[in-house]
Amino acid sequence: MDAEFSLHRQLENDTFFIGSFSLSDVLLMNDNRYPWLILVPRLWEVTDITDLSAEQRAMLTEEINHVAAKLKEHYAPDRLNIAMLGNVVPQLHCHIIARFKEDFAWPKPVWGTGEAVPYAKEQSEKIIPLLQKLVLI
Amino acid sequence: MDAEFSLHRQLENDTFFIGSFSLSDVLLMNDNRYPWLILVPRLWEVTDITDLSAEQRAMLTEEINHVAAKLKEHYAPDRLNIAMLGNVVPQLHCHIIARFKEDFAWPKPVWGTGEAVPYAKEQSEKIIPLLQKLVLI
Repeated sequence: MDAEFSLHRQLENDTFFIGSFSLSDVLLMNDNRYPWLILVPRLWEVTDITDLSAEQRAMLTEEINHVAAKLKEHYAPDRLNIAMLGNVVPQLHCHIIARFKEDFAWPKPVWGTGEAVPYAKEQSEKIIPLLQKLVLI
Repeated sequence: MDAEFSLHRQLENDTFFIGSFSLSDVLLMNDNRYPWLILVPRLWEVTDITDLSAEQRAMLTEEINHVAAKLKEHYAPDRLNIAMLGNVVPQLHCHIIARFKEDFAWPKPVWGTGEAVPYAKEQSEKIIPLLQKLVLI
């Protein structure tokens, strides 16, 4: 299923690559205000979950659940936000974000709330291996 | 699984009841700016998908997919937004929203963007049976 898959340029610009599950690649949003991962199924020209087979949807659901459980375990957030929006980037992708009552956007959604704060080099060098160890199966 | 389930008061206040699937109740957000349905699994004290069994998650995923497919079919939106946020209402619920490039909030998410515009009585009397016919299995 990897044939012809390529990541949308905006997702590529805005994220760090963390690793791959059976169906999806795992990306870290380059915004140090939130622990914010994105799953992107490696499928060509897929924009909605309705474009997936039932089997692919079940795989994606369990990959989302796995990441959600690991973020909960490590960060103990007040809430998890799980969302497939795609108003800006049409390629199917799922945001999984650990939210805290004291975070920048709370209780609003994170999208469109202020400007992203990119990780400093020494921060990204720490968090990428941490997340790889945490979420990769 | 219905034992002890009760809908969060804010969801009850903000929505119309459309009907029930095997796992979830289907609600219509009382905001005529968007075709906006909400699925609420009839489970007690569940806040995240990680609280569900794998079987319940698979059921919820297919119920979400069914509603998404029916909204796409009827409204032909530019995008579907599918999201579980819960920053305000902790009870697990999933938003499924048909989005249009000319809608009020586009390309932003709908949450926290302006004030809801409630359906007039004659509008709700039309859309509720329309959605019941469209989405109920």
